[in-house]
Amino acid sequence: MSVDILSTYIYHLVFKQDTKNLRLISRLQASLVWTDEELAWDTSVYPFEEVILPVSKIWTPELHVTNGIVTTMKHSSRDLLLSSNGTVKHNVIINAEIACAVNMFNYPFAADSCPVAIQAWTAEGCGTYLQLGQLKNVNGSQGDWKTENAFYDTRLNRDDRNFIMVQLRIKYLNPFITLFLPSILIVLADVISFALPLGGGERNCFKVTLVLSFTMFLVILNNELPGDGHCSPIIRTHFCICLVFLVFSMLVSMVLTGIAAEGCREALSLSCTKCSAPKCTANEEEKADEEAKADISVVPLDASEEHTRMLRKVVNFLEVLGAQQLKRERYQKIAKRIDEIFFWFYFIFGSIYFFAMTYVMVNYTCQVNHFDFWY
Amino acid sequence: MSVDILSTYIYHLVFKQDTKNLRLISRLQASLVWTDEELAWDTSVYPFEEVILPVSKIWTPELHVTNGIVTTMKHSSRDLLLSSNGTVKHNVIINAEIACAVNMFNYPFAADSCPVAIQAWTAEGCGTYLQLGQLKNVNGSQGDWKTENAFYDTRLNRDDRNFIMVQLRIKYLNPFITLFLPSILIVLADVISFALPLGGGERNCFKVTLVLSFTMFLVILNNELPGDGHCSPIIRTHFCICLVFLVFSMLVSMVLTGIAAEGCREALSLSCTKCSAPKCTANEEEKADEEAKADISVVPLDASEEHTRMLRKVVNFLEVLGAQQLKRERYQKIAKRIDEIFFWFYFIFGSIYFFAMTYVMVNYTCQVNHFDFWY
Amino acid sequence: MSVDILSTYIYHLVFKQDTKNLRLISRLQASLVWTDEELAWDTSVYPFEEVILPVSKIWTPELHVTNGIVTTMKHSSRDLLLSSNGTVKHNVIINAEIACAVNMFNYPFAADSCPVAIQAWTAEGCGTYLQLGQLKNVNGSQGDWKTENAFYDTRLNRDDRNFIMVQLRIKYLNPFITLFLPSILIVLADVISFALPLGGGERNCFKVTLVLSFTMFLVILNNELPGDGHCSPIIRTHFCICLVFLVFSMLVSMVLTGIAAEGCREALSLSCTKCSAPKCTANEEEKADEEAKADISVVPLDASEEHTRMLRKVVNFLEVLGAQQLKRERYQKIAKRIDEIFFWFYFIFGSIYFFAMTYVMVNYTCQVNHFDFWY
Amino acid sequence: MSVDILSTYIYHLVFKQDTKNLRLISRLQASLVWTDEELAWDTSVYPFEEVILPVSKIWTPELHVTNGIVTTMKHSSRDLLLSSNGTVKHNVIINAEIACAVNMFNYPFAADSCPVAIQAWTAEGCGTYLQLGQLKNVNGSQGDWKTENAFYDTRLNRDDRNFIMVQLRIKYLNPFITLFLPSILIVLADVISFALPLGGGERNCFKVTLVLSFTMFLVILNNELPGDGHCSPIIRTHFCICLVFLVFSMLVSMVLTGIAAEGCREALSLSCTKCSAPKCTANEEEKADEEAKADISVVPLDASEEHTRMLRKVVNFLEVLGAQQLKRERYQKIAKRIDEIFFWFYFIFGSIYFFAMTYVMVNYTCQVNHFDFWY
Amino acid sequence: MSVDILSTYIYHLVFKQDTKNLRLISRLQASLVWTDEELAWDTSVYPFEEVILPVSKIWTPELHVTNGIVTTMKHSSRDLLLSSNGTVKHNVIINAEIACAVNMFNYPFAADSCPVAIQAWTAEGCGTYLQLGQLKNVNGSQGDWKTENAFYDTRLNRDDRNFIMVQLRIKYLNPFITLFLPSILIVLADVISFALPLGGGERNCFKVTLVLSFTMFLVILNNELPGDGHCSPIIRTHFCICLVFLVFSMLVSMVLTGIAAEGCREALSLSCTKCSAPKCTANEEEKADEEAKADISVVPLDASEEHTRMLRKVVNFLEVLGAQQLKRERYQKIAKRIDEIFFWFYFIFGSIYFFAMTYVMVNYTCQVNHFDFWY
Repeated sequence: MSVDILSTYIYHLVFKQDTKNLRLISRLQASLVWTDEELAWDTSVYPFEEVILPVSKIWTPELHVTNGIVTTMKHSSRDLLLSSNGTVKHNVIINAEIACAVNMFNYPFAADSCPVAIQAWTAEGCGTYLQLGQLKNVNGSQGDWKTENAFYDTRLNRDDRNFIMVQLRIKYLNPFITLFLPSILIVLADVISFALPLGGGERNCFKVTLVLSFTMFLVILNNELPGDGHCSPIIRTHFCICLVFLVFSMLVSMVLTGIAAEGCREALSLSCTKCSAPKCTANEEEKADEEAKADISVVPLDASEEHTRMLRKVVNFLEVLGAQQLKRERYQKIAKRIDEIFFWFYFIFGSIYFFAMTYVMVNYTCQVNHFDFWY
Repeated sequence: MSVDILSTYIYHLVFKQDTKNLRLISRLQASLVWTDEELAWDTSVYPFEEVILPVSKIWTPELHVTNGIVTTMKHSSRDLLLSSNGTVKHNVIINAEIACAVNMFNYPFAADSCPVAIQAWTAEGCGTYLQLGQLKNVNGSQGDWKTENAFYDTRLNRDDRNFIMVQLRIKYLNPFITLFLPSILIVLADVISFALPLGGGERNCFKVTLVLSFTMFLVILNNELPGDGHCSPIIRTHFCICLVFLVFSMLVSMVLTGIAAEGCREALSLSCTKCSAPKCTANEEEKADEEAKADISVVPLDASEEHTRMLRKVVNFLEVLGAQQLKRERYQKIAKRIDEIFFWFYFIFGSIYFFAMTYVMVNYTCQVNHFDFWY
Repeated sequence: MSVDILSTYIYHLVFKQDTKNLRLISRLQASLVWTDEELAWDTSVYPFEEVILPVSKIWTPELHVTNGIVTTMKHSSRDLLLSSNGTVKHNVIINAEIACAVNMFNYPFAADSCPVAIQAWTAEGCGTYLQLGQLKNVNGSQGDWKTENAFYDTRLNRDDRNFIMVQLRIKYLNPFITLFLPSILIVLADVISFALPLGGGERNCFKVTLVLSFTMFLVILNNELPGDGHCSPIIRTHFCICLVFLVFSMLVSMVLTGIAAEGCREALSLSCTKCSAPKCTANEEEKADEEAKADISVVPLDASEEHTRMLRKVVNFLEVLGAQQLKRERYQKIAKRIDEIFFWFYFIFGSIYFFAMTYVMVNYTCQVNHFDFWY
Repeated sequence: MSVDILSTYIYHLVFKQDTKNLRLISRLQASLVWTDEELAWDTSVYPFEEVILPVSKIWTPELHVTNGIVTTMKHSSRDLLLSSNGTVKHNVIINAEIACAVNMFNYPFAADSCPVAIQAWTAEGCGTYLQLGQLKNVNGSQGDWKTENAFYDTRLNRDDRNFIMVQLRIKYLNPFITLFLPSILIVLADVISFALPLGGGERNCFKVTLVLSFTMFLVILNNELPGDGHCSPIIRTHFCICLVFLVFSMLVSMVLTGIAAEGCREALSLSCTKCSAPKCTANEEEKADEEAKADISVVPLDASEEHTRMLRKVVNFLEVLGAQQLKRERYQKIAKRIDEIFFWFYFIFGSIYFFAMTYVMVNYTCQVNHFDFWY
Repeated sequence: MSVDILSTYIYHLVFKQDTKNLRLISRLQASLVWTDEELAWDTSVYPFEEVILPVSKIWTPELHVTNGIVTTMKHSSRDLLLSSNGTVKHNVIINAEIACAVNMFNYPFAADSCPVAIQAWTAEGCGTYLQLGQLKNVNGSQGDWKTENAFYDTRLNRDDRNFIMVQLRIKYLNPFITLFLPSILIVLADVISFALPLGGGERNCFKVTLVLSFTMFLVILNNELPGDGHCSPIIRTHFCICLVFLVFSMLVSMVLTGIAAEGCREALSLSCTKCSAPKCTANEEEKADEEAKADISVVPLDASEEHTRMLRKVVNFLEVLGAQQLKRERYQKIAKRIDEIFFWFYFIFGSIYFFAMTYVMVNYTCQVNHFDFWY
């Protein structure tokens, strides 16, 4: 014995699409019509065409969302309309929470569809059968997702496997503004920051600020995205690689600052230790020499020799100063050259990576099987 | 058969207006009066004018908010008053959550109205009809919105399409203080920061701090505003453009710092490479020259020549120093001139943009159809 | 027909006072005694003085909190005590959420009282009347507010308008520590930061940090306070003015840094352009002169003239250096003088403002009508 | 008429201890045995020893937690076991939220005990009496508190005032790591930061960062702790004093930087104005002198006098430079000496305070009366 | 009398695994079959093989999750299927919240298993017995944990102690990206920051930024992890040690900056006070000497002596300058040498610690007894 139920229309409303937990919370308002022959009456005996009955007094069918984790059906009103031929008209509201593993690979430009498998209760051929009528999609969602379309579909040509296919698309404006725009600007600022001079301590300070801000955006991104799994967003990997890029550029900048300031002795490169060693000893020799001369200078001399000796001191002092500046400039020149090479390496490699990632993000489509709840 | 219900008064209270999800949570306390002839009695038989009955024992009407996503009706008390002529007096409380897509274009100065379509249950001409009496708006909302007014209205002159029109206005003080004032101050500080000297590393540090703070306010703004859609706030676009302005000004400042510090070689402009190249070689020539002379100086000379040679060394050293400073000053002058040009460009373009945006924000009115729930 | 109910005692507990939404969540445990003559029995027939009955089997009165937005009454236990003369003793628990627009003007030192209008159900003279017995206030609130006192009061000498007046006071320690102390310290640090030298880039960096921290506290303050309305906290206005003060002081400091570094040319003041222009040309003349002389110097001269010429070069170089430093010092002196004038202006005006604001905050009392729910 | 109920065992589980609101959420699983003589049967007539009955068909006792703000009792299963002699065995689950004002004075090393007063319903000598059996404490709490022990206790030797005493101890690791360790490290860094040189702008920048971080931790601390009251945590006062210490040290550091850079004129001390004034005028005199001489120098002189005059210019220039540097060094020496004095003052006073606070925190025990719910 | 219930299949779904509170929220959808002989009928009398009955009209068994803190059983549908021989087929849904103290020692690479002890209600040998059929694990969890497997198991060969063993593994990607990667990069940056020069104030600024960021990650980590207990994550201890490392390196860097700037006098080492004292007095002597000479210089002299005297002044000035720079350089050399020693100490000790910690984290397995709920 089975009862045929006709849902004349269904108002479907995607209440909320939870991006973090990949849950679709749907609200269906179904208008049901069925015939309960036991409730029919002879209008000649009881001269009314229709009667209003409390919903608790008669049997009402039960609808389920098969792939819903939580499903509740409520009566839309406490009264229903019964015609003399036993036809019952009633409205029900179904709230369902569906675990729909949406394809998030192309986040924040992701779009996918989720099935809402609406069925009546059936046990071993016995039960109620649902005939679907008109479907109307109501736009009520104000969350992160936009419902593009919703239509009836069936699977494997089986009568009892009807579902509403809900096509969803992420509203990309919010994640774009709060995550993408800042992160692109940070990477851009990192590239341009190579224009800053190495020496003054400005560049490292700037870069560490950029790295920490980027980390903050990475944390925000992770809080908004679901955990890893099949078709998890490539954007997370992309952000990680960007972070490593930024940190690498910061570390190189720090080492180069060290080289610019204190020469290769600090940078521990083998080829330079040879050339820097004589430099230092020469420097110290000169100073020793100068001090030796200073000791001798107490011996009285005639005016002109005294004159010359003093001028020589001045010249010596200036020469030592000049030599030091020369050394510093050489260090800075080495650091600047490495910096330039690294910049071009960073720029070219970064651009190649960026275009490759954009290509993958735009073209690759990840497939998710949404029907694994039907075994 | 239909029952006429008179709601003698309705106390309407906007419980909460959710700006993020555009939901209006309303609380209606309706005082209903209807006549149930089956309950009337003859006062001569049963000599009481009125009787108090438990609400669960008799039929009570059901009110709905048609455009409510979630609607619950509760009895205000467990007893009701029944008169001998069958007139029943009862109070009910209706809590409704309504998806009201408010016009947010002019946020934070947005104002719009939401309909609360209160109706009794009716099915195919059969059911209960609601006559609306007095409406009293209770000020109880402490959220982001202020209820300005609430009045009955009707649509298309249809009896069964009554609704309460609730006029809402955003309390602009909170978003103004926490979002607008800081962002205006940040943009102002960015403009004034052109007064800071290019060289000392101060300006870039200052500007990156401003950019990151502004990003923070952009994130806060996005968390408080709904997703994009029809009539979404123009302020979001405005903030994005401001961010791009700030970042652009920061990048220009960084490049100019590089030019000021290391000349045009860094800035990669073609016209300058010609003039800077001879400078460098000249500089190096002088040094080579100086060193050559230093090598010769071990040869003994008479006092006056020695004297002159030494003075020449001092003069050479000072001349090199002067030439370097001259070069640096020329670089700084170039950078400062570009900086000044950019400042005026930035100032004028920014002002034009600002006034245009203000004009649009004040004058444009976006229309939202609030009645799409009546098909 | 009306029933008199005596509440022998009421234990009142302020469960929570929500500062943000201005809601008072109250819990009342009332011990009720009433006489239901229909339930009396003859102790000679049924020889028991008292009997325990399930609460669901007999009529029990219903208490309301009239000004409660949400009110729920629950039975304290499932059994009640019935005496042979029909006297029923029963305990009920009432939870009520009351929209109480507390006077927050003097926040965080605000104190106000909220009425909890406890009434039995009555409809048109028919119903139950409540006689209030003992009131005991239980200290259980651990939130932001302290319940100072609670007592019965009546309004307009009407019997049916009894209420419990709950006197509340904000626990000022938490907002004082997390909002006031830091903001006072920030303003103090801003005043003292005028001691920092203008030149080194330290002061601007310091001031922008202070401004951004202050903004953070302003955001925190706004998140904890209710929206604007009658008697909204003056502290918000105060914080806004402080922020404008801080930003103004930062901007002045930035402009002065620019003047100190690059003279009045940057500051665009008219009176200075005259004096700075000759300076620059003079400076450039000297340089041109020097270069001219340098060109001539290739012509061979005798030793003493050569000697004198060279010494003149050294003197010229030092004079140019001295002139530049002199110019810079003059710029710095101008900037420092303006800075001092501004500091005293800022200090005096700030102090006047501070004392005026303190006076208003301490002395002004804003009146809120708590009884607008009784029309 | 009273019924004796034996709870053969109680499984007690502290579900959650809410530190912020000082609420103890307890879960009691009690196994109850009582005799209902009306339910006994003659096994000769009905030959079963035991029968399973639905719980809704017979009377079951009701247990309360007297000091619970919210108490709910649920049946553990829908069936219960009835023996032929009328003995009923049943399990119930009680969830209670108890307002337990724990002694938090020594936070985060606080430990206290909360009574859970479990009682059966009694009204005026009539009702049910509870006999407590075995108590088993289940470790299920994963929150901030650890249940150390739980045992039955009684008060004032009254039978009906039994309670479970739950001994709680804060898990100190989490607050220690997230609040204590950082704040100790911040104070330590502030003390060590006196090693940084006053001049370079580094120390003030460092100290303002420390102050703002400390403020952040103060805000976090306040969010985790309950409002003020009896036995409120001393740690809050301690943090406030530390903040004042840090700010004071920052302000002193700022003033000393000003003194080091610009002398006592800035610091407005009276004793110094005398000595600095002649310095300045002297300085300016020299410059005027120099300029005067420069004007005269256009008069032609013979070579040797010219020579001497020029050398004198060089010497004058260097002397002015030397005098300025000397002045600056004297300023720095004054600032450094004050800095050292302040450091020792700060160090000694800080250490005394620290040990005093540690002594108070370890030794003082604050007493809270947990039994004020029994009047 | 006991009823045997066969659960033909169970769909098990780990709804959520709460890492913070160590709660496993499970959802079991069981398909039950049992025989109720009282409901059988003679198909010859009532010619139907099967009949659909409302679930509220007949007895249905009750399933429990023994180790669940909260367990609710709901009927999957309001109707069930009854065969003529009394066999009843019904589906139930069980939601259980289980306190499962997972081994978190190796977080974020933790993996453990939790038992879900599903049992029917039994009291003293009387009740229902559950026979478990097929188990199907549904992948629906989108949280921090992945359900690897789920299978039936039994304990101590007792029939009534069946449970579903759920094997869980943390999805390590999210904590790795948001906690591990940043903290590793921070420690790496701290090591590389030794390349920065000590003097310019850059290194301390950099290190304090790193320390504060690390503190932030420590706070985030603690918010995501459960409190301390048996098998609590070693990663927390690791982060604490890392923080102490970072702070120690920052403090050493600060002290070395002080030494480099102002010599050992600041660093308070005893051995140096001897050598620095004569230096200062010598310095001051020279100055005094110079001033004395300057006073004498007003006495007129012949040109050559004047000449020589002036040149000596120049030489003296330059020598004082050179001596000061020499002193500064010596200080810097000392500081740099200590810095290098500390770096290698820090690097080697840090590496040893890092490998030891990695070894412990990978190899140590902490055992948790999951079956303490069966006494």
